[in-house]
Amino acid sequence: MRIEKDTLPNLLKFVDTRTEEVSNRKEVEEAVEKIIRTVRSKGDSALKEYSQQFDNISINDFLVSQENIDAAYEQTDQAVLTALKEAKQNIESFHKMEVQNNFVDANKPGIIRGEKITPLASVGVYVPGGTAAYPSSILMNVIPAKIAGVQQVVMVTPPQKDGIKPAVLAAAKIAGVDKVFQVGGAQAIAALAYGTESIPKVDKITGPGNAFVATAKKMVFGQVDIDMIAGPSEIGIIASDDANPSQVAADLLSQAEHDKLARPILVTDSEVLASQVSVEVNRQCALLPRREIAQAAVDNEGFIAVVENIDDAFELMNDVAPEHLEVQLNDAISYLNQIKNAGSVFLGFSASEPLGDYLAGPNHILPTGGTARFFSPLGVDDFIKKTQFVSYTKDALEKDAKNITTLARVEGLEAHARAIESRFNGEQM
Amino acid sequence: MRIEKDTLPNLLKFVDTRTEEVSNRKEVEEAVEKIIRTVRSKGDSALKEYSQQFDNISINDFLVSQENIDAAYEQTDQAVLTALKEAKQNIESFHKMEVQNNFVDANKPGIIRGEKITPLASVGVYVPGGTAAYPSSILMNVIPAKIAGVQQVVMVTPPQKDGIKPAVLAAAKIAGVDKVFQVGGAQAIAALAYGTESIPKVDKITGPGNAFVATAKKMVFGQVDIDMIAGPSEIGIIASDDANPSQVAADLLSQAEHDKLARPILVTDSEVLASQVSVEVNRQCALLPRREIAQAAVDNEGFIAVVENIDDAFELMNDVAPEHLEVQLNDAISYLNQIKNAGSVFLGFSASEPLGDYLAGPNHILPTGGTARFFSPLGVDDFIKKTQFVSYTKDALEKDAKNITTLARVEGLEAHARAIESRFNGEQM
Repeated sequence: MRIEKDTLPNLLKFVDTRTEEVSNRKEVEEAVEKIIRTVRSKGDSALKEYSQQFDNISINDFLVSQENIDAAYEQTDQAVLTALKEAKQNIESFHKMEVQNNFVDANKPGIIRGEKITPLASVGVYVPGGTAAYPSSILMNVIPAKIAGVQQVVMVTPPQKDGIKPAVLAAAKIAGVDKVFQVGGAQAIAALAYGTESIPKVDKITGPGNAFVATAKKMVFGQVDIDMIAGPSEIGIIASDDANPSQVAADLLSQAEHDKLARPILVTDSEVLASQVSVEVNRQCALLPRREIAQAAVDNEGFIAVVENIDDAFELMNDVAPEHLEVQLNDAISYLNQIKNAGSVFLGFSASEPLGDYLAGPNHILPTGGTARFFSPLGVDDFIKKTQFVSYTKDALEKDAKNITTLARVEGLEAHARAIESRFNGEQM
Repeated sequence: MRIEKDTLPNLLKFVDTRTEEVSNRKEVEEAVEKIIRTVRSKGDSALKEYSQQFDNISINDFLVSQENIDAAYEQTDQAVLTALKEAKQNIESFHKMEVQNNFVDANKPGIIRGEKITPLASVGVYVPGGTAAYPSSILMNVIPAKIAGVQQVVMVTPPQKDGIKPAVLAAAKIAGVDKVFQVGGAQAIAALAYGTESIPKVDKITGPGNAFVATAKKMVFGQVDIDMIAGPSEIGIIASDDANPSQVAADLLSQAEHDKLARPILVTDSEVLASQVSVEVNRQCALLPRREIAQAAVDNEGFIAVVENIDDAFELMNDVAPEHLEVQLNDAISYLNQIKNAGSVFLGFSASEPLGDYLAGPNHILPTGGTARFFSPLGVDDFIKKTQFVSYTKDALEKDAKNITTLARVEGLEAHARAIESRFNGEQM
């Protein structure tokens, strides 16, 4: 792993450079636009054609039956079921703390004002096929929606020649998914956005996917809500001499193995730690099953920055705004107030990042690519909407009428003013 | 206003039809793409060229001086200042009730978990020029940001031959805007997203604008956060025989005057009220300064639906998901639980919609076009982001290690498992 040593301003500039993913964006956009149009007009029959074309599978019934789901659950290794259930409990207890309340204010005579929270009526969760079908992500998407009170959570996932992975269906059952449909790609997103004979139209679509899925989500945004478009994973670690270089290296690699564009970053005030971690990353990487991916991420995206002191480390890291941030320092929790921009933070030498991916309870669907400056982890807030309300008596309105009509008229909106005055002029306008 | 009378299913289908705004989308996109690229590379000098080209004004200094702002405030009518200050108080007291708290959970031995709320560092508010420069919208954008704790709120607004409207600058001063820049259009959005020599880069851009501004906001989304892209205004009114047809008509027109594509809708169980309101809308409309706009909205977008009963009225209106909803019924507040989808609700005969536009305190930046199914009014939540955190002792991690490594390995992520195990294997991997 390459080591950067420079003044803080130069290091700050450095974090902005990132390999741009080369993609045939225009072609993908045109293909997806056509898929969406076709699914909108032809419904299930379009889904069947696309499943044949893209997945090479002929589907009669998109709905995965409860019998199939139950059978998959039975087939799943007991240790996996235990881990999923433990994870579910922790994710639930964490996200329950996020629940917001309605409020009402009745302190002024004749006036009631408030805000009412309503769960979204239905949500669709996309689960990729193949190796990227992560049971843990099903829990992370579905549980906050259920806590928010969403009545109908449907899951879509590409059909598989050998059937959907048992652990995926087991996770769906444990998370409380209401219906599972075997349909994938842009056609699945189109179906969720507009509805077909068999797939219900939803209010929001969440979950990761390939370029076709991500493009389709962007295109249907506005027709439905979507979650963030996730970029490559990032881990930032702030560590001093007190950290164990082998553990720091292992944590960096845990994100590097996700994607060749993943970004593992260490910021430290210790040159010794920097060079030890650099060596250790290479040693451990060579022993990994996904070493090719991890090594590419380490070589092209990763870096170790050596800074003057720990304050500079936090400044640099706030500029990176990493998806995951580990603070491998003594008394780590005391640095919480120095963290401005990060999705999920792991405090102390034992809080290894995969803890958050699977079990601790916080969400693992997090803002990437520096968007932690303004985006938040997925949570209960993402599955509700707010409605404001006011009630005024005629007396209360009369007291405020002059102020309202003054502002309406300064904005040139005469009908606004007259609507208020209609309450006091009788039928006369 | 045309009256629709049919079965509920047919009426439900009917609400989906909406005039599509014809726009030269491709041309606008290309022009905006070029503007953004130029502002990114050339900074202030590009802004100067575009101000000359589009606004026909030569600008030396984009920053509006405090002296100019103070002078504008002095020039503003006392009644307007009083109304703005009263509005500010109500908007503040309402939005303070939206503030969420950090939480922390330390109930399990060796485990601390929590969520920390951080205000966005800086926000840019776009204020259109000409007749659409609404002082009230400045309050609605800025006050929730300030309550959230945003340190720097900057406002951009197109330069004007005769100077920016005094009431606009007075509203900026009252709302607590930190800096005002006279720059508009797509170039202003580009400047806020990427920063120039004189305009600071922000984390989020809010506020309405023309097609160029809206397109630019969409294009910079991801680089910064943006608020909703607002569509034409809507008002839905549910009313029975008990409502006053003249007041119902006046309220419908208050939104119709905004835009030829605005949509005024009445849903009622009374044929008598339906025909009275229909007549009254035409009579009042003819007397309005903006009668041409209002009449087009009424004729092309508006309708009155007569339903069997009030329950059907709520079902129909939930399908419309209007930006504004008035409930002109006796004991209106008792219907709150029947309202699923609406931006802002006005309960009772005296809660005329313009009350919410200006003074009551709830926000007037609201989801349009049916998006109240999943979007919320602008509020304090829009100006914060959340960061999750966990801290585990080594003992606590050891207890959970098996569950974590089991899930990591079922997902094929070996480096995730090894990161956890590195805590217990010493240096050996």
